Amino acid sequence: MSDYKIFSLGDIVLQCGLRIPDAKLAYKTYGTLNAAKNNVIVYPTWYSGQHYENEWLIGEDKALDPRKYFIIVPNMFCNGLSSSPSNTPAPYGKARFPNATAYDNVRMQWRLVTELFGIEQIALVTGWSMGALQTFHWGALYPEMVERILPFQGTSKCSRHNFVFLEGVKAALTADAAFRDGWYDVQPEKGLRAAARVYAGWGLSQTFYREKLDLEKLGYATLEDFLVGFWEGWLLSKDANNLLGMLWTWQNGDISDNEIYKGDFVKALSSIRAKAIVMPCKTDLYFPPEDSEFEVKHMPNAELRVVDSIWGHFAGGPGTSPVDIEVLDKALRELLAS
Amino acid sequence: MSDYKIFSLGDIVLQCGLRIPDAKLAYKTYGTLNAAKNNVIVYPTWYSGQHYENEWLIGEDKALDPRKYFIIVPNMFCNGLSSSPSNTPAPYGKARFPNATAYDNVRMQWRLVTELFGIEQIALVTGWSMGALQTFHWGALYPEMVERILPFQGTSKCSRHNFVFLEGVKAALTADAAFRDGWYDVQPEKGLRAAARVYAGWGLSQTFYREKLDLEKLGYATLEDFLVGFWEGWLLSKDANNLLGMLWTWQNGDISDNEIYKGDFVKALSSIRAKAIVMPCKTDLYFPPEDSEFEVKHMPNAELRVVDSIWGHFAGGPGTSPVDIEVLDKALRELLAS
Repeated sequence: MSDYKIFSLGDIVLQCGLRIPDAKLAYKTYGTLNAAKNNVIVYPTWYSGQHYENEWLIGEDKALDPRKYFIIVPNMFCNGLSSSPSNTPAPYGKARFPNATAYDNVRMQWRLVTELFGIEQIALVTGWSMGALQTFHWGALYPEMVERILPFQGTSKCSRHNFVFLEGVKAALTADAAFRDGWYDVQPEKGLRAAARVYAGWGLSQTFYREKLDLEKLGYATLEDFLVGFWEGWLLSKDANNLLGMLWTWQNGDISDNEIYKGDFVKALSSIRAKAIVMPCKTDLYFPPEDSEFEVKHMPNAELRVVDSIWGHFAGGPGTSPVDIEVLDKALRELLAS
Repeated sequence: MSDYKIFSLGDIVLQCGLRIPDAKLAYKTYGTLNAAKNNVIVYPTWYSGQHYENEWLIGEDKALDPRKYFIIVPNMFCNGLSSSPSNTPAPYGKARFPNATAYDNVRMQWRLVTELFGIEQIALVTGWSMGALQTFHWGALYPEMVERILPFQGTSKCSRHNFVFLEGVKAALTADAAFRDGWYDVQPEKGLRAAARVYAGWGLSQTFYREKLDLEKLGYATLEDFLVGFWEGWLLSKDANNLLGMLWTWQNGDISDNEIYKGDFVKALSSIRAKAIVMPCKTDLYFPPEDSEFEVKHMPNAELRVVDSIWGHFAGGPGTSPVDIEVLDKALRELLAS
């Protein structure tokens, strides 16, 4: 009994020119679409995350209140539920799964929203990390449809430094011979663990580690326990090709890399009409506030609100830092009320 | 014809309890020891670096002027010139090379300085990165001997976050099956390249990459060219076991982890009598200024001087950022004149 539904996209052709035959978009909704169809929130998933891993922000005591809003969580391609290397039959599966951009993802999410639900207006799009990347895409690709966006700890284009950090993750994973260029029969465990260790230094700030929040707040026994239990545990629960597919999506994220904006990044930013609060975290090592500053400067209706936290990339998501989540929740309420 | 000399240490026993038989300390000197033996500068090497890779700070137009000073550059254990996994015969070589601490290194450097040269006073110890780690050790282990220290972009103890960053490097290198737990016949090239890609994100700041200094200042054609030419090129020129040996030295660096200070870090810091200028870089991702702040607060005779640069860990060394090196050179002059 799965807790989500599948929207059948049919055969689709991605920006890369390759096809996913009989493509699937897995999604879950929370709450009820009202008659006016004006209570819609779209909340895309983050790197490796599946819809249920977005739920820390949804609840009757929260801004994303399902009694009030119809919240749609679309799963990203390659996350194991929507079409992915791990669930697509030959010849398009495994290492041959085509590269999907954030543009491809959001185009198909738009089909879900319009074709299946007949929605014409979206009150809010929000998301963490790669969810923020998709949020920016919604704002830039459908400016007349999207009223508000709140991207947190994420950007509208992968920065060069962020690209390099991801190169390290990828190189560690694929250094394991068991990966077999993606044609493995069993997961390349050593590579997944190595990639997790690389990730561990990036995910949380220097001060997080200095103040030992892994022990004090997350309850791990030692630093090594945190590296094994939290980080290796995370990536061992995923499929290697799926992870690399999403990593490609992330590295190639750019709201202007499409036929609409033709690479004009500033034009794409300035086309986002939605009222926006952009929330980077001061200590995020891969999405530093400077990148968001540039974005907000070129967005006509946006406010930059830097989260003052030592949780780094994990300030707003995925449920690890209650204090920061409260700050985020307040911003979501404020934006929704405006 | 080598440009360095070997000081034979004989059989030595390290802190770990293991022996290096017939241990070698490779070193090079610049300038002439004066009759009073009071013109001595000790300048230890950095992670993977060999003595000639310390030379960017030495010259007649520089603070470290060999016409004036007798500059000793001792090579770290595991750097391929001093005793290392790659040059130590069985049964102590390769993967069995014993772990050497920074304490072990500096104890042996002290023997070189005192036994070979009869030096009793050192005007200055300075070093970059792991060279800074050794510099702090000199100050804490020989407080009466060392008059001045200038550690730059490095700390006296490996922070937890720094430890995690290095775990990522290590995991990437050892994920390559060709590493064979250290018993390789040929270098694990894939692992070395993967480790280099992991390192690339840490070495330079987000802003460095944003402003494309890899292209603008270092002359690479593209980001990928920089990753291959600069980063992979660097680690491919090294031996995997040597790199892991130095990585262990780094991760376990702590001026108080010895029989003198018995783990009392504050006591070790407050024992450093040397007049000190401690120079972290504002954007260094693994040695952030906060760690240096703590150190300086507990050192009786130290000044914190944060380098305002976007070159991250590469602000002071190894010769890549001329503007920052000038700032460093001035600080060295000022300290030497005091």
